[in-house]
Amino acid sequence: MKPSSIARIDARLYAVPLAEVLSDAKHGDHTHFELVTVTVTLADGREGTGYTYTGGKGGRSIHAMICHDLAPVLAGRDGSDIDAIYDFMEWHLHYVGRGGIAAFAVSAIDIALWDIRCKSAGKALWEMAGGASNSTRAYCGGIDLNFSQEKLLGNIQGYLDRGFNGVKIKVGQPTLAEDIERVRAVRALIGDDTTFMVDANYSMTVDQAIEAANGFKQYDICWFEEPTIPDDYQGYARIARATGMPLAMGENLHTVHEFGYAFEQAGLSYIQPDASNCGGITGWLKVAELSRKYGLEVCTHGMQELHVSLLSAQKNAGWLEVHSFPIDEYTTRPLIVDNCRAIAPDVPGTGVTFDWDKLQAFQLLAVSVGA
Amino acid sequence: MKPSSIARIDARLYAVPLAEVLSDAKHGDHTHFELVTVTVTLADGREGTGYTYTGGKGGRSIHAMICHDLAPVLAGRDGSDIDAIYDFMEWHLHYVGRGGIAAFAVSAIDIALWDIRCKSAGKALWEMAGGASNSTRAYCGGIDLNFSQEKLLGNIQGYLDRGFNGVKIKVGQPTLAEDIERVRAVRALIGDDTTFMVDANYSMTVDQAIEAANGFKQYDICWFEEPTIPDDYQGYARIARATGMPLAMGENLHTVHEFGYAFEQAGLSYIQPDASNCGGITGWLKVAELSRKYGLEVCTHGMQELHVSLLSAQKNAGWLEVHSFPIDEYTTRPLIVDNCRAIAPDVPGTGVTFDWDKLQAFQLLAVSVGA
Ligand SMILES: [Mg+2]
Ligand SMILES: [Mg+2]
Repeated sequence: MKPSSIARIDARLYAVPLAEVLSDAKHGDHTHFELVTVTVTLADGREGTGYTYTGGKGGRSIHAMICHDLAPVLAGRDGSDIDAIYDFMEWHLHYVGRGGIAAFAVSAIDIALWDIRCKSAGKALWEMAGGASNSTRAYCGGIDLNFSQEKLLGNIQGYLDRGFNGVKIKVGQPTLAEDIERVRAVRALIGDDTTFMVDANYSMTVDQAIEAANGFKQYDICWFEEPTIPDDYQGYARIARATGMPLAMGENLHTVHEFGYAFEQAGLSYIQPDASNCGGITGWLKVAELSRKYGLEVCTHGMQELHVSLLSAQKNAGWLEVHSFPIDEYTTRPLIVDNCRAIAPDVPGTGVTFDWDKLQAFQLLAVSVGA
Repeated sequence: MKPSSIARIDARLYAVPLAEVLSDAKHGDHTHFELVTVTVTLADGREGTGYTYTGGKGGRSIHAMICHDLAPVLAGRDGSDIDAIYDFMEWHLHYVGRGGIAAFAVSAIDIALWDIRCKSAGKALWEMAGGASNSTRAYCGGIDLNFSQEKLLGNIQGYLDRGFNGVKIKVGQPTLAEDIERVRAVRALIGDDTTFMVDANYSMTVDQAIEAANGFKQYDICWFEEPTIPDDYQGYARIARATGMPLAMGENLHTVHEFGYAFEQAGLSYIQPDASNCGGITGWLKVAELSRKYGLEVCTHGMQELHVSLLSAQKNAGWLEVHSFPIDEYTTRPLIVDNCRAIAPDVPGTGVTFDWDKLQAFQLLAVSVGA
């Protein structure tokens, strides 16, 4: 065994309750989020931790794949050769992969290996992942479709009070008139200088989305996120062409091929890869590179405590989503926002260190594979 | 609870050893296949069994998803409304779905519900799924890339001896010359009247596939299967245009959207959906319907004991693959071939009844959810 050979993999599953029930148009009610952590230990004792998360479904399936289909065959491989391990995992899982659960499992392992890589180099992730900056624009994304308008506005005010200059709300109310009224009210509250996005969680048909985009337009919307199903790349392009509304998506794309089709065919203005489900840091950086080729700003979805480093590092950084799943509150360094910008951690590694004691009460499974 | 409400779901996982190690170009060595069975019991006692399978990876992940993410929320739903349950499962799993493990899990449950539907109607699956015929053309697909040429030819002779008039071999040897020599030798053995396909398991680049197709052409190849990665729809079209070789794929496509892109962009001559990973019988029939719209023959991949009924029922039936994973040998009715045609079972239900005693030795997990 080489010093950098993978000796042990510890995979843990947590179901972390949310402070209140959060809803969106297509995923329904969220009562908790699932967190799957993976700690990889090399033969020489170096270790790194990666993770993925879900809205409450699939966690056991991801955990099972890591423990049964990946950990046993990764043991003994060179943990410092991330590209080789990434490729191996992709082909190893291909028949049951090409996205879905496999994308989440691969992501968690990849992030753990990057944590080791950065620690070994003595560098922070933002330096290792591009180095353009150590801070980025950030906005708060609410999962607030079920909030009354009063509660919605109170929630938005909370974002402003925390120092953010960008906010996003869910759309997809029973009628478009209700959506437009909420958009109007939020814009009235936040004033002209706050950036404002809306997110339909792919709940609309193309025609509905065109009507909605035309209705939202007058309120200066930065982007309309996932107006329709992510599979319908050309439908996105029809919406963009018909309305001139900037479109964003990416949280539901899992392979570099899917992102390729989105860049080529969807007429997007922003791309939103999530390192927890598009192949980890390796996968996210591939998408970021493609985004430059196509002249788009790269943004993020979820896991702000990690993405703050990845996004800050990019020359074409767009906006960091500060998601309503507060994973960062279960780390030793919840997201830091200063003067409207999110600040990347400056310690060697990904900078995401879990507070295992705080998580302990929510642990469902803990499995070690290896010695 | 209505009589047709889902009362209990039993999910079992088996790892069934193969008689010998089987290899292909991209999945490597197969020592066993995984079988996940799902038995759904309704409140009035009616029950049906569905299943999915893998080449040895992902089984525990599929099983976990069925037990933890599907069975608990399916309990109490109307098991006779398959379309509603199918839609529910798709959206319920969407964030961790859109293919991958979720497609396998959904397939197993869908097939169980179809088993109940057919039994309740007192009809065989071939009658319920289109009714065009109760028999179909069939060919043997070998996973034989690691076989010596002598062994390869012996294996092919075995197919002919069993009464088949169609055979398929794997290609993707270290050099194209070796592949061509094997193709030549097989054609010499089988004569002019036997249908002959080759399958690269997406191991080639587009340019390599063009060269290979041109090399295979003179041996009257019915189709060249998965020459390159299934994600590269337009690459398939380039191969088809450049060579005139009929192309086939589908075993790695999991959503109706992916099949839509394949039909639209890939220039295929045959489509090969697998009901075990494209959404069960509901998903397979959607693809079959699309295949008629696009004027292609629909074929199958794997699980011949079930697909024989689905394929026989279609007006545009192509060829049934008799796969090297002998799931049918663990049922009470292994595939019946008569005068070169595979015969669909004529009993109410899917006609796939597992021999649980024979499977027992290979059982890894058995979980019941519900009462
Ligand atoms: Mg979103
Ligand atoms: Mg094949």
